Amino acid sequence: METPRPLILISNDDSINAPGVHHLADCVRSMGDVYVVAPAHPHSGQSAAMTVGAPLRINEYPCDKEGVRMFTVDGTPVDCVKLALHAIVPRRPDIVLAGINHGSNSGVNVTYSGTMGAVLEGCIEGIPSVGFSLLHHSLKADFKFSTAFVAKIVADVLASGLPDGVCLNVNIPARVMPEGIRVCRATRGKWVDGYKRYLDPQGIPFYWLTGKFVNFEPEAEDTDEYWLRRRYITIVPVKSDQSATDMIKPLADRFDTD
Amino acid sequence: METPRPLILISNDDSINAPGVHHLADCVRSMGDVYVVAPAHPHSGQSAAMTVGAPLRINEYPCDKEGVRMFTVDGTPVDCVKLALHAIVPRRPDIVLAGINHGSNSGVNVTYSGTMGAVLEGCIEGIPSVGFSLLHHSLKADFKFSTAFVAKIVADVLASGLPDGVCLNVNIPARVMPEGIRVCRATRGKWVDGYKRYLDPQGIPFYWLTGKFVNFEPEAEDTDEYWLRRRYITIVPVKSDQSATDMIKPLADRFDTD
Repeated sequence: METPRPLILISNDDSINAPGVHHLADCVRSMGDVYVVAPAHPHSGQSAAMTVGAPLRINEYPCDKEGVRMFTVDGTPVDCVKLALHAIVPRRPDIVLAGINHGSNSGVNVTYSGTMGAVLEGCIEGIPSVGFSLLHHSLKADFKFSTAFVAKIVADVLASGLPDGVCLNVNIPARVMPEGIRVCRATRGKWVDGYKRYLDPQGIPFYWLTGKFVNFEPEAEDTDEYWLRRRYITIVPVKSDQSATDMIKPLADRFDTD
Repeated sequence: METPRPLILISNDDSINAPGVHHLADCVRSMGDVYVVAPAHPHSGQSAAMTVGAPLRINEYPCDKEGVRMFTVDGTPVDCVKLALHAIVPRRPDIVLAGINHGSNSGVNVTYSGTMGAVLEGCIEGIPSVGFSLLHHSLKADFKFSTAFVAKIVADVLASGLPDGVCLNVNIPARVMPEGIRVCRATRGKWVDGYKRYLDPQGIPFYWLTGKFVNFEPEAEDTDEYWLRRRYITIVPVKSDQSATDMIKPLADRFDTD
C-alpha cells in the first residue's frame, strides 16, 4: 500500500481573503495535500477564542491551485482548526500551519494572536504546528522573500517533528531578504497608550484600541525583537501548557493546606 | 499622608449578570476599594481575545455594596482589564482578580478561558493577578464554601505579591467544603468528540461545539485534576510568557542559519 502524501492543514486569522494564507499554501503545496480552512472574516487579536454558544458553517471556497482545497468557517482560528479536524480533512494532518499573518506576532503578541491560537490548537491535538507572521500589516505586503525560508522550516518539521507540547512561532522581517534564522525567546514588553477616546454625535464617549509596543529588554541577544531588528527570521518555541512548574514548590510552601 | 486602601480590580467572562463576579466582590471588599469591570454579555471561551476593529463603551452598573463600583464594557475580558486600567480605575490596582467563573478552568481549559485571559492581561501589566473558577456550570451554583478560601488567597497575594510574570489559576470543587489547597500543574489532556452536526430547515449542515475532556494522566499526583477530584482547591501558577526556553538550544541546532 502506498504511503499517502503528507496532509498539511493551514489556517490563519486574517481570513480566507488575505494574501498571506494563499502564499503559505503556495510555499508548501509541493510537499503534500493541502487543506486551507480559514475564517470567513478577519479575526486578528482573537487569541485562542472559540465559539461556544453559536452554530458554525463550513463552505468550500473556490481554489484552482493543484493539490489545494480551501474552506471557510464563520468563526475564529481555533474554530477553524477544531472543525477542520472534526469534519473537513480526510485523515489526521501531519502538520498544522497558520499564517502568513499580515503583521508581527513577536514578544507578548503571542498571547493575543489568532494565528498562534490556531497553532496552539494543533499543538494541543498533538500535531506538529507552526505559525508564520510577516512584520508588515498591509494586505499589499510582499511575501516573496519568505518563500524559501517557510518551505525549509515546514520541510524540516514534516521530516523531524517537534518536541511534545511545543509549537513554533515564526516571525519574518519585512521588505528584505532575511540574513538567516535564529531560535530565541519572546522579548518581554507590553503595549502602552491603550485607547483613543472619541465622542459620538450624542456626546457620549467611546474608545478604540491603539497603542505602541514597548520592549523592556531591547539589548537582550536571546530575544525575537533583537534578531528581527537585525533582519533575521526568528523562531520562538512556544509551550501549550503555561504552568510555571518552577514556581510550584515555593508557592506550595505559601498556600498548601489540609 | 494616608496610604490609600488597596485597589482591587475584578473582571470575569460570564458577564456582569453572573452571580460569581458579585460573590467575588463580596469575598474581598473588606480588603480594599473594589472596581468590578465586567463584560456586558457572556464571553466564555474567549481566551485573551481583544477587540481591535470596533469601538468599546463603558457603562456604570447599579451597585449598592459599600466600597464597590461596577461597570460594564461591551467587549471581552481582556478589553475589560485594558479599558479599566486606561479609563476607569483612579489609581493602579494592587491586584487583578477574575471570576468566580461558573465552570472549571482546570487542565487545558486555561488556554481557552476568558477568565484567565483577564488574569493574563493583569499579569502582563505587572500586577499580581488571580483567576477563580468553581467546578459548577450553573448560574445557580452555590459559592458559599469558597468564601473563606478566596479571601485567604487574595489576602496572601495582596500582602506578599507573586513572582514576576506568574499569575494564579485557582479552581474550586463544587458543592463541598474543600479539604484544603494544593499548588500544582495543569493536567495534560484535551477535548474530544468536538461537534454535534445538525441540518437547518433547508437541509444545509451546521455544527455546534460539544465534547468531553479526556485527562491523559489521571493518576499524576502533581496535577490539578487529581486534587480537584479529591475535593481540594487547586492553584496552578501560570506564566504569561509561553516561550519554551529549555527547547531553544536543541531547536537552534536544527534551525539557526546565517
